[in-house]
Amino acid sequence: MRADVYPTVLNIPPAEELAGKAAVVIDVLRATTTICTALANGADTVVPILTPEEAFQVARDNPERQFLLGGERKAVIIPGFNLGNSPLEYTEARVKGRPILFTTTNGTRAIRRAAGADRVYIASLLNAPAVARELARLEMDAAICCAGTHDQFSLEDTVCAGAILEFMAGPGQPVETNDMGLVARELFRRYDGRLADLLHLSSHGRNLVKLGLQDDLLFCAQLGTTTHLPVFTEGQVVLPHGGLSGSDGV
Amino acid sequence: MRADVYPTVLNIPPAEELAGKAAVVIDVLRATTTICTALANGADTVVPILTPEEAFQVARDNPERQFLLGGERKAVIIPGFNLGNSPLEYTEARVKGRPILFTTTNGTRAIRRAAGADRVYIASLLNAPAVARELARLEMDAAICCAGTHDQFSLEDTVCAGAILEFMAGPGQPVETNDMGLVARELFRRYDGRLADLLHLSSHGRNLVKLGLQDDLLFCAQLGTTTHLPVFTEGQVVLPHGGLSGSDGV
Repeated sequence: MRADVYPTVLNIPPAEELAGKAAVVIDVLRATTTICTALANGADTVVPILTPEEAFQVARDNPERQFLLGGERKAVIIPGFNLGNSPLEYTEARVKGRPILFTTTNGTRAIRRAAGADRVYIASLLNAPAVARELARLEMDAAICCAGTHDQFSLEDTVCAGAILEFMAGPGQPVETNDMGLVARELFRRYDGRLADLLHLSSHGRNLVKLGLQDDLLFCAQLGTTTHLPVFTEGQVVLPHGGLSGSDGV
Repeated sequence: MRADVYPTVLNIPPAEELAGKAAVVIDVLRATTTICTALANGADTVVPILTPEEAFQVARDNPERQFLLGGERKAVIIPGFNLGNSPLEYTEARVKGRPILFTTTNGTRAIRRAAGADRVYIASLLNAPAVARELARLEMDAAICCAGTHDQFSLEDTVCAGAILEFMAGPGQPVETNDMGLVARELFRRYDGRLADLLHLSSHGRNLVKLGLQDDLLFCAQLGTTTHLPVFTEGQVVLPHGGLSGSDGV
């Protein structure tokens, strides 16, 4: 089994190289953590949208769907949106049963870029062990796609990729990886048990702390708090019901 | 002082972000190691060229310059070229006094992309400590640009970036860096004294060993064997004579 790691949106291979593989999209701070949380709290679906304008348009064109609008630009809520990009906002009271149009700087682009893979999982530290078990179960080659921050390498996404590699491998089931994967796995081994420390070291993490979003950081640093397996399919992120990922998923 | 590290050609910032900075271009296996070696052995100049066709054209158009043609595609010499991309070929006997047209898969693109910086240094493990001292002397912010391998992160370029960061910092002179730089510096600290081991682990290194180019790997893994400071200026790589980098350079 092979699982390669790509450090930023720019480095995600083209669709033809992703065909036949499972892709995993990671944007720990905070898009994929928020998506995992929203779905775990009962949101109906999360639709990744590239621009705020497009989100307003889709909401206007489909009033009967009662979309919530969520997302950020420069880490703050978009004017006119219902929700920002903090996973702490996506409570059951706010999101249960609702479809969400969601646009963030890095995460949305990453999901769209990874869409050429046969399956696309949305991962964060919260569900990294579950995603890893699913990949091991599938025995499919995987492309682990870190969103990165503004097209640059990020510690937080890389350590999550490393966690997935670490949990994928089992006795007699080694996982081959590329140079980025070797570094990611080593980073996870070094910071396992103190992931919040690493997130505080990261450039994006320090920026969030400056903005007073320390609580978000601590929430995003939690490892394995959910076994939900959100998948991106037909333009939206959902939790598969009873299907592909049945027993593990919901 | 600040020095950020960029993992692949794709991640090198646009020219406007490089203005006012010193750029350092790294392609340890093997382009920048070969360029450093060619100039240290007396080559007159190395002209990075994007395609073999362009190299043939420039040579035809300037017969009086007696260009040597050097470079590779898929790690092997280009048909009709004088030299491949092995630093071991660029001996004094072959290159002294000669200008070289040089085209490689990753390194040439990286040099062209970094050209927007105020100064562009060519670095390899061979001259990494000297490049670091030069950056510290200049007290300019730096963009350390790894070529990577086919637009992916590479261990060998990253560890070289880490070496430069490590040697830049002095007592009372800390160097701030981005997330990639933190990982690069840590990687260097872990492999300092056994860089050849790391190069053997790298995807590109394993590929070279498969091709029987183990000696190249060992040559490229040498740290600090030269103090030459090749710079890219006006379309070519030269050693500045008596100028900017005088005493250190030649």
